[in-house]
Amino acid sequence: MNEEQAMDRAVMLAMAARPHPNPRVGCVLLDADGTVVGEGFHEKAGEAHAERIALDSAKGPVHTAVVTLEPCTHHGRTPPCTEALIEAGVKRVAIGSVDPDDRVSGSGIKVLEEAGIEVAVVGPDIGDIDPGYAHHRRTGRPRVLLKLAATLDGQTATASGESRWITGEQARLAAHRLRAQSDAVVVGMGTVLADNPRLDVRIEGFIGPQPRPVVISGTRPMPADHSMVDPLIYAPSDGRSEVDLSDVLIDLGGRGYLNVMVEGGPTLAAAIWKAGLVDDVVVFLAGRIAGGVGKPMLAGVFGSLSEARDVHISGASLVGKDLMVKGSVI
Amino acid sequence: MNEEQAMDRAVMLAMAARPHPNPRVGCVLLDADGTVVGEGFHEKAGEAHAERIALDSAKGPVHTAVVTLEPCTHHGRTPPCTEALIEAGVKRVAIGSVDPDDRVSGSGIKVLEEAGIEVAVVGPDIGDIDPGYAHHRRTGRPRVLLKLAATLDGQTATASGESRWITGEQARLAAHRLRAQSDAVVVGMGTVLADNPRLDVRIEGFIGPQPRPVVISGTRPMPADHSMVDPLIYAPSDGRSEVDLSDVLIDLGGRGYLNVMVEGGPTLAAAIWKAGLVDDVVVFLAGRIAGGVGKPMLAGVFGSLSEARDVHISGASLVGKDLMVKGSVI
Repeated sequence: MNEEQAMDRAVMLAMAARPHPNPRVGCVLLDADGTVVGEGFHEKAGEAHAERIALDSAKGPVHTAVVTLEPCTHHGRTPPCTEALIEAGVKRVAIGSVDPDDRVSGSGIKVLEEAGIEVAVVGPDIGDIDPGYAHHRRTGRPRVLLKLAATLDGQTATASGESRWITGEQARLAAHRLRAQSDAVVVGMGTVLADNPRLDVRIEGFIGPQPRPVVISGTRPMPADHSMVDPLIYAPSDGRSEVDLSDVLIDLGGRGYLNVMVEGGPTLAAAIWKAGLVDDVVVFLAGRIAGGVGKPMLAGVFGSLSEARDVHISGASLVGKDLMVKGSVI
Repeated sequence: MNEEQAMDRAVMLAMAARPHPNPRVGCVLLDADGTVVGEGFHEKAGEAHAERIALDSAKGPVHTAVVTLEPCTHHGRTPPCTEALIEAGVKRVAIGSVDPDDRVSGSGIKVLEEAGIEVAVVGPDIGDIDPGYAHHRRTGRPRVLLKLAATLDGQTATASGESRWITGEQARLAAHRLRAQSDAVVVGMGTVLADNPRLDVRIEGFIGPQPRPVVISGTRPMPADHSMVDPLIYAPSDGRSEVDLSDVLIDLGGRGYLNVMVEGGPTLAAAIWKAGLVDDVVVFLAGRIAGGVGKPMLAGVFGSLSEARDVHISGASLVGKDLMVKGSVI
């Protein structure tokens, strides 16, 4: 296996976990002939890093360590990976990219090079492997995915608010998969009062950590009989009627949440959209047409064409009878 | 070339024209060894049919005629194709399907068989080759494609009606291609008054017949300075405020229009949708989010979930920065 193939495999390994607030990292070890002698990935914050797991599993002398992200140099909950690589006598380290975390940010490369180890930055960028982590370390905020769902003609509910099961079974499963990729799921109080959601991942066989339920509260109190486990509730500051969503994201970032999904309703969706805090969108469009005006995906008024903002549509796929459109905000 | 390959080619030839009110038909002639000795397609009503064009071009004796639709037996503007095939001494005729037109409908097969010619119906069905024709001969009405366009969050214009260029250049080109496949393009008077559209195909190199512009008029008169060439205008019957759209389609069918596209606005779109007269839909979704409520794709109220009707989404593709979603009404 050459280094490029080893990096592909390391990326695949990295994707297997969601170790927030830490980055997804995978590592593949090659001997001098290019034979894989060990591999590993970082599964959970507080547990061993990818490099150490790979080294512990190594079946022979390691020549090259291929690792998706620059090895850490700091004593966190586990000892630094640079130390482990040096102790193992590794000759070369190929990394995907420099770690954007202030505590690393080039120091891992420096320590390895000072120990006489050859280091090459070969890609891919951490922003492609773990966009939530890269975004979080750059901005302090989690990456925000806004989930919308409507009929093909853009209606989320009837004029009186009836909305149960606009999309089908497979679209709902896809939405649960998106929750499974999120560290927190955010809704407004209107949604709590209307739907009493659990906001958890309900997929057979799902063993990952559940996303944290988050409620943006207005002036209405949280109902006593809600269905969420340990929700975070953000209420407006004294004398204000609305929560500052930027503050919410900074707080969620401080708690180590890298990826959050905003599920609505239309008031929260419009507020976070208009605040310019959305990074990605996913729109489920049902295979049906309402035929008239009911409730919108985003509340409020579309007053001027200049208010519309571009979304780079990255793709669309059928999920059952519905369409899932993915995009990112430009 | 075997018969199946010959049929594929015949279908391809058929698709090259839009000879409404006649069907699209292609024909490939094979000799006894399976060599192609002639081919043709029906280009325009009043001109020679596919079989005759192919026979006239034949470079040698014809064993098998492969033709997408049952040959006609009636003297229309041209003599019957069955006669030409019999005169040419054809031994076998492989047809896609029986012609649903009442004037043919099996009689072509009968005439050929009575002349000692072997006939096989091998598919594909005319409904797959020329759905507008099949629909027209079955119902007397043209097949109706409803075209919609909006932002990803379902808005066609701002609350005050600003809407120019919601979608991009490539989506507009795709919309012109849809016009090029239509025999008539239908809009409501509101669209005429707001946009003064030409409703013609503006694609470089387009030489086909332009679709007929059709205006559904309410109580407002047609402006004298409209931009359409020879529009058909339907006004309400005496004492009524709205045009009966079913009557319009029957009239358009009577005029030989097989495929019509309804381009809007929202009032006409909702009226024809609610009347259950739409067969296919295409929705252009712009790569942008409006962020609030402006104008809808379909006007009126979405009052009850049972009003929503299913659309079979057949696919979605990116056209430039926008998404084109195609579907048919179930």
